[in-house]
Amino acid sequence: TDSNGFPASLTIVCVCVRVLIFFCLCSGASSTGATPSEEINGPGNLMDFLDEPFPDVSTYEDFHTIDWLREKSRDTDRHRKITTKSRESYWELIKGLLDAWSGWVVMLLIGMLTGTLAGVIDLAVDWMTDLKEGVCLSAFYYSHEQCCWTSNETTFDDRDKCPQWQKWAELMTGNSEGAGAYVLNYFLYISWALLFSFLAVSLVRVFAPYACGSGIPEIKTILSGFIIRGYLGKWTLLIKTVTLVLAVSSGLSLGKEGPLVHVACCCGNLFCSLFSKYSKNEGKRREVLSAAAAAGVSVAFGAPIGGVLFSLEEVSYYFPLKTLWRSFFAALVAAFTLRAINPFGNSRLVLFYVEYHTPWYMAELVPFILLGVFGGLWGTLFIRGNIAWCRRRKTTLLGKYPVLEVIVITGITAVLAFPNPYTRRSTSELISELFNDCGALESSQLCDYVNNPNMSRRVDDIPDRPAGPGVYTALWQLALALVFKIVITIFTFGMKIPSGLFIPSMAVGAIAGRIVGIAVEQMAYHHHDWIIFKNWCRPGADCVTPGLYAMVGAAACLGGVTRMTVSLVVIMFELTGGLEYIVPLMAAAVTSKWVADAFGKEGIYESHIQLNGYPYLDVRDEFTHRTLATDVMRPRRSEPPLAVLTQDSTTVEDVEALIKDTDYNGFPVVVSRESERLIGFVQRRDLTLAIKTARQKQDGVVSSSVVYFTEDTPQAAEACDPQPLKLRRILNLSPFTVTDHTPMETVVDIFRKLGLRQCLVTRSGRLLGIITKKDVLRHMAQMMNQDPESIMFN
Amino acid sequence: TDSNGFPASLTIVCVCVRVLIFFCLCSGASSTGATPSEEINGPGNLMDFLDEPFPDVSTYEDFHTIDWLREKSRDTDRHRKITTKSRESYWELIKGLLDAWSGWVVMLLIGMLTGTLAGVIDLAVDWMTDLKEGVCLSAFYYSHEQCCWTSNETTFDDRDKCPQWQKWAELMTGNSEGAGAYVLNYFLYISWALLFSFLAVSLVRVFAPYACGSGIPEIKTILSGFIIRGYLGKWTLLIKTVTLVLAVSSGLSLGKEGPLVHVACCCGNLFCSLFSKYSKNEGKRREVLSAAAAAGVSVAFGAPIGGVLFSLEEVSYYFPLKTLWRSFFAALVAAFTLRAINPFGNSRLVLFYVEYHTPWYMAELVPFILLGVFGGLWGTLFIRGNIAWCRRRKTTLLGKYPVLEVIVITGITAVLAFPNPYTRRSTSELISELFNDCGALESSQLCDYVNNPNMSRRVDDIPDRPAGPGVYTALWQLALALVFKIVITIFTFGMKIPSGLFIPSMAVGAIAGRIVGIAVEQMAYHHHDWIIFKNWCRPGADCVTPGLYAMVGAAACLGGVTRMTVSLVVIMFELTGGLEYIVPLMAAAVTSKWVADAFGKEGIYESHIQLNGYPYLDVRDEFTHRTLATDVMRPRRSEPPLAVLTQDSTTVEDVEALIKDTDYNGFPVVVSRESERLIGFVQRRDLTLAIKTARQKQDGVVSSSVVYFTEDTPQAAEACDPQPLKLRRILNLSPFTVTDHTPMETVVDIFRKLGLRQCLVTRSGRLLGIITKKDVLRHMAQMMNQDPESIMFN
Repeated sequence: TDSNGFPASLTIVCVCVRVLIFFCLCSGASSTGATPSEEINGPGNLMDFLDEPFPDVSTYEDFHTIDWLREKSRDTDRHRKITTKSRESYWELIKGLLDAWSGWVVMLLIGMLTGTLAGVIDLAVDWMTDLKEGVCLSAFYYSHEQCCWTSNETTFDDRDKCPQWQKWAELMTGNSEGAGAYVLNYFLYISWALLFSFLAVSLVRVFAPYACGSGIPEIKTILSGFIIRGYLGKWTLLIKTVTLVLAVSSGLSLGKEGPLVHVACCCGNLFCSLFSKYSKNEGKRREVLSAAAAAGVSVAFGAPIGGVLFSLEEVSYYFPLKTLWRSFFAALVAAFTLRAINPFGNSRLVLFYVEYHTPWYMAELVPFILLGVFGGLWGTLFIRGNIAWCRRRKTTLLGKYPVLEVIVITGITAVLAFPNPYTRRSTSELISELFNDCGALESSQLCDYVNNPNMSRRVDDIPDRPAGPGVYTALWQLALALVFKIVITIFTFGMKIPSGLFIPSMAVGAIAGRIVGIAVEQMAYHHHDWIIFKNWCRPGADCVTPGLYAMVGAAACLGGVTRMTVSLVVIMFELTGGLEYIVPLMAAAVTSKWVADAFGKEGIYESHIQLNGYPYLDVRDEFTHRTLATDVMRPRRSEPPLAVLTQDSTTVEDVEALIKDTDYNGFPVVVSRESERLIGFVQRRDLTLAIKTARQKQDGVVSSSVVYFTEDTPQAAEACDPQPLKLRRILNLSPFTVTDHTPMETVVDIFRKLGLRQCLVTRSGRLLGIITKKDVLRHMAQMMNQDPESIMFN
Repeated sequence: TDSNGFPASLTIVCVCVRVLIFFCLCSGASSTGATPSEEINGPGNLMDFLDEPFPDVSTYEDFHTIDWLREKSRDTDRHRKITTKSRESYWELIKGLLDAWSGWVVMLLIGMLTGTLAGVIDLAVDWMTDLKEGVCLSAFYYSHEQCCWTSNETTFDDRDKCPQWQKWAELMTGNSEGAGAYVLNYFLYISWALLFSFLAVSLVRVFAPYACGSGIPEIKTILSGFIIRGYLGKWTLLIKTVTLVLAVSSGLSLGKEGPLVHVACCCGNLFCSLFSKYSKNEGKRREVLSAAAAAGVSVAFGAPIGGVLFSLEEVSYYFPLKTLWRSFFAALVAAFTLRAINPFGNSRLVLFYVEYHTPWYMAELVPFILLGVFGGLWGTLFIRGNIAWCRRRKTTLLGKYPVLEVIVITGITAVLAFPNPYTRRSTSELISELFNDCGALESSQLCDYVNNPNMSRRVDDIPDRPAGPGVYTALWQLALALVFKIVITIFTFGMKIPSGLFIPSMAVGAIAGRIVGIAVEQMAYHHHDWIIFKNWCRPGADCVTPGLYAMVGAAACLGGVTRMTVSLVVIMFELTGGLEYIVPLMAAAVTSKWVADAFGKEGIYESHIQLNGYPYLDVRDEFTHRTLATDVMRPRRSEPPLAVLTQDSTTVEDVEALIKDTDYNGFPVVVSRESERLIGFVQRRDLTLAIKTARQKQDGVVSSSVVYFTEDTPQAAEACDPQPLKLRRILNLSPFTVTDHTPMETVVDIFRKLGLRQCLVTRSGRLLGIITKKDVLRHMAQMMNQDPESIMFN
């Protein structure tokens, strides 16, 4: 019997979720005190979904790059087999159709799970954030808002103080006012924050080290074809979901949006394992992961189209049109699942959905562009500061004590955040308030304007008014909050807990924007006759919307940090729902990107990729140098010649020696050492496996057997001669080649577009050398350092 | 002194536009009666913007394919030059920065011109469509709606009959009722229609034959790297704009949306010529054209995001992220320019913007999916019928009389359209009415419901009511209109006038959808107790929105014809502005695509590309056959050996003979005929030019001179020996090669992703043959015909 306005189904969900979390908290607490042996074995022992039970020739080793062309051609083979089989019987036909549909099924599952997880996270964060301040007496699993839902007070402010909700001090001492109560509340706020963050960092440390950070740099790297086993495992999924709730609730300056993308990708990887089409093909798997990333952003911002564009623009590497359509489907399913859960009780997907009622005017573009400049500067400052700090963490003692670091930062954050009402609450609530237009019923301090008693207007039409004392106090506190957020975010991002930077960046921008907005509004009120206001802002007209400034500022800061463009504007567009405000948003986003680009081309994700040294070949970096393939290929002049095999004169012994002496991924096969004419390429892994198998199972294959890569193998002349070993079947007869005169820009293009691992270099049919993806990356980094100026013109 | 509610600036625009059109009509009429010599010289003599004044080695011939890699590397060279120069002086630095900014300037110009043209077209179509029925007495350049703006009547219906607006019969005979007036109106309606369509087809025939059709198939082909000179010329732009107005006004079953994309691309091409960065590089030019296409769709549907996605999904071939961002900018500028012109007087970008007030229910998915099936069937019927008719037009006498064809079709359309009120008006008005929800003030026949006099409700809240006689009449007429539209559209699309099929397709779907919608609504009203309605549609509740069914039907039919997916849903989403209705739209779009795909993989644009035999390599066609490069390469077994040059033993004479005897685009250069080791590739065009220049300017180069492609040229041993000709500088030292064992799927992938023109085939360093883009296309078509079943599983 739920009579307080919340639908019964929601209540059940709430109860379940919160009981579950309590359970997790307890189990988490107990396992942090677990035996050391458990801690040491940790994640290594856990079965992982990226691991295939029986590695065969098709799998890749950890921290290696996949060969996109090969994956694609393996998928085509599979496809061909199904098509051929499907003609044989109806059963096979049905199986074939099911296979063709499995992509959609995976999308549906991903969308539903991602939406559900996002809803659960929202509900849990809501409740646990409020738990830091007090508890609901009528039902402990209600958040503050749900608790006061039935209250009959008319204003929001009064309703917030409903008797069912009690702050900790009130509950313990019965006294809600006074210094004692304040100190007690303060102390409990800090304690809860420390408890949450300690649990979060401990769970991450013990169960899933990959669950820390935002995950987007690693996902970008994985999608570009790198293998990081366990990064998207089910264990990471579970721990990241739980610790994300804890980390956000602890009040640290971080958001849940980035990690949600990681969570969604984990879901994607989980469902891939249900279908061999995706689990056995690294290329196809990445298509699913791209779509999952779209679903993640879709639920993070309630913006399905924005999510798809984010995946396209920011995260994905290989994004065929089929994936576009499927991503869209997954993003929509996720959004609708989230809406069905309705975590905010307003049938909106995000806390900060807004509707503005006044248009913007040309003259306002000036402050908007200034906000864009601010966003760009913030982006530069944040990236430089954060990267410097992360480098220090990697190289100094600091990195040895991640738990302590989290505790200290949480402590500092909590101590500084509590006194200021704008930092005490959760960051998304802060953003929501800053975005909002001041309605007549708004009781917020930010809307404390002096009303003219003579004016009789409709309640939702607010003409221009002078700011009251509340607004000035708010400005004060906002300015302090701005400085605090700027500094603390730099130190927070990158700690060993799940941490997104969308929300903190947006908060910084929203605060700055709101301050600028109120300043412009008050300037317009007091100086209607100034030439800049004269044309569009007559007395009594509601011409400046400070909330819009906050939104523009948020877009600018987010753009400065991530360098997103289209997806950023579309996400913001989906938040406001009006084409009207796209121009201000775009102006700010473009300015911010340009300003930030002037100081350094890389966004925060690319910077972290570089910092961690992942082999990521960015689609956007244009290579404009005049070098040729011959300058990059190995071996260099001074180096020993290339390790090659010949088609019919290498013995098993020679091959084994070569494998032992070198650590190359594969070897070119030539006609003979004299002519050096290339006939194919053989993978190290395949070669090892083939020789091992042959030695075990094939009679007569000994160390002195000759390895043949030719089509026809000469019969052993005499019986005593060792049996030849035919290895043509493992030879790749279509290795990728370029000539030594090929410009490096073309080579880079080929690597990028075809997703190659390596490419052989020839001159008039002779094999000269090899270029691997790592050679390309090394060369690009080298050229970039030589000539940093050239980026200006890109 | 404009007192009728229209802003003064708009009136000025109106007047200008209409005076301009009158002028065009006159000049058009006069030029159709021009001397035959003019007609013969026609478009050939007109200077064209795609033509460069001095063809140099970098240009391509008409109807040839560009080499994307080469274009890209040329642009990098240019870029490098600017970067190097910019270090020399401040002036060069500024020039460099201006160059870097020129892309944005081009986008701004394209957006502004496209938006303006779209606005002008809208205004002109509005007026000329009404001109078929009557004229405004107060100002002849007012359309019906503008004319009756000041009228004081309360209902829309009465206001439509304002005294300033007179039908032709009323004006001529003073009598607006009776059979005589009807016949006179009928006659004048047909006459105007014939006049407009005759002018349109004549202008197209005489001045710009490329202005006919929708243009999207050709633009797709051009963007994929094909050269069609004059297709995007300024003359095409001018004539297409004028004739588009005429064609739409003539009442034919065609729309302006597709041609607007062509118009936008012409604008793009026009502005490319202002900047050598774009005019001299075919690759860069195509980036601009992709963005222009986005701007075209943006103004056609008032959907900037949908436009960008349309360009990405449907039209573009090479779409780097930079272009995504710029397209978005161009699309937005275009949308805002159009809004500033405000052609519909309601500050909306399209006539059929809608807002619905009721949600949809799960059970309604059944009719939505049925509409999807209908859309798919319509798509198949339309594509098959239209292609069959177009093929007939190409092969029989029909194609010889395009003017007559247009006249006859217009005559039939006008004769059949006039009696039915739903086909008499313009198709976009029809769609607009069908999409609309019935408000209380709506006077349309479709909203003639029987009101319950006992019920007192707010005026805009319409509970469920039985349909009145007007609705049944409307259903009747709509059914006739549906049949008429289906048949006539098949014959209309592809005639020698500008014709888009978005609007007719949407009309077909909207009519079908509205009929289904009303049926469901009345069924719900009369059978509230049926099990399928019981749960969601109680008596008195407004549960079924027939307008939504019309919209879903329109999406389904458009999807069936074009096979658009994401962009279609996003365009529709931007029309309704609510995330709410995405699921019905998506369900219908997906169903429609699947149903249509089951009958044939190709949309209307791909079908027309095939019909016209353009060399278009579709990104979406997956090649899944088991063939190898060796099966496709030329020369075949039975053919004479490949025409090659040797690096140091071919004479000028030999080369000239080779050029004369063959028509290949270029020739591979090998070390010697014996070893056949490849060293490079030389373009036919470069070779011809180099020899011609050498013969003229270089002493001692005669027919017996040896052509050297090597680095070092031996000195002529004796003075009497002919001077050698060094041609290494025109030799491409990095030709693209694959081995003969490379699977064709990889080769197709390489052609697609790198945009190659040709690729050489080698085996262990020996040159075996060549594969051109046309060979690939031919092979793909051949394989597709052999095995049409395989498409089922894609």
